[in-house]
Amino acid sequence: MPPLPRIQIEAPPWLADLVDWDRAYTSDEERMDLAIALARENVLRGVGGPFGAAVFESDSGRPVSVGVNLVVPLNNSVLHAETVAIMLAQQRLASFTLRAPGMPPHELVASCDPCAMCLGATLWSGVIRLVCGAAREDAAAIGFDEGPVFPASYDYLSERGIAITRGVRRAEARAVLELYRDRGGVVYNA
Amino acid sequence: MPPLPRIQIEAPPWLADLVDWDRAYTSDEERMDLAIALARENVLRGVGGPFGAAVFESDSGRPVSVGVNLVVPLNNSVLHAETVAIMLAQQRLASFTLRAPGMPPHELVASCDPCAMCLGATLWSGVIRLVCGAAREDAAAIGFDEGPVFPASYDYLSERGIAITRGVRRAEARAVLELYRDRGGVVYNA
Repeated sequence: MPPLPRIQIEAPPWLADLVDWDRAYTSDEERMDLAIALARENVLRGVGGPFGAAVFESDSGRPVSVGVNLVVPLNNSVLHAETVAIMLAQQRLASFTLRAPGMPPHELVASCDPCAMCLGATLWSGVIRLVCGAAREDAAAIGFDEGPVFPASYDYLSERGIAITRGVRRAEARAVLELYRDRGGVVYNA
Repeated sequence: MPPLPRIQIEAPPWLADLVDWDRAYTSDEERMDLAIALARENVLRGVGGPFGAAVFESDSGRPVSVGVNLVVPLNNSVLHAETVAIMLAQQRLASFTLRAPGMPPHELVASCDPCAMCLGATLWSGVIRLVCGAAREDAAAIGFDEGPVFPASYDYLSERGIAITRGVRRAEARAVLELYRDRGGVVYNA
């Protein structure tokens, strides 16, 4: 038997180009617009699922990393937009947590309510805040299951110091989901 | 700003050597013994958290991939034993799901009840069965939070066709958690 394979996760080159790395994204809406733009581009380029996410420094608004759904192109069901953004941020900062001494606080902005996996990943990532766009029901409406996420799941994160804001630019975020459906995109976990 | 970093996930070389790749692991106990052995070795070598997991072909008992917790050495809070095993299995089979046409059914065996992230990842992975060793309370007893997992979370997976068996070799699996605590291992999400 050969040794276990090596996994390489490389973000598509266009991903970083959608970000103005020197800009301060100051409001929730500006940050969400970036997450939605990433999701839309992922659909338009036919790369993967209609989801985008970004990690920002909470106070400065500086972007640290971004992610899109890479499940299908990389044959990896763990690579949702949120997990990709979290892994890239931690890699960039060489830290397994985004809440380390000497580090500014970070937040995760996701174009849709995270699935069960990504909500758990948010808790372990070290972000102090989660901002969501489209709702779970919007994803369900085009066939995406979000898994075992309950109101108590959000409470669980809140009780551990993660502030949560949902429904930011919901209509715009939902429009990307509908774009994906209209283009006949794969619903890989139906 | 440089392009986004590349993430490389390479299992430690000793990991594959703990597996008898030509053996049929026929019972739940044999499969769990492997997951526990992986967890123990991860502790003894000081690599990471006291958790191990393996993906098997359900019927033949052939191992497909294994994983251990690599959060600390790879600076990546997503890399729990279960997510590593799932990603490696999908990479090996070049498929984003382990439940594809023409593929034998697969199952995930984890040395401890999965956290919220990994329970979600289990749902998306395509395995038809989840087998767990130590209990959530055993992990909590040494300081590891398991996140928002509720009885309804397990029901959610069951209703979607994933059979779940818990408490296999629980005492042996718990002993590895206690070994980690006694050696002063890092509780990275406390």
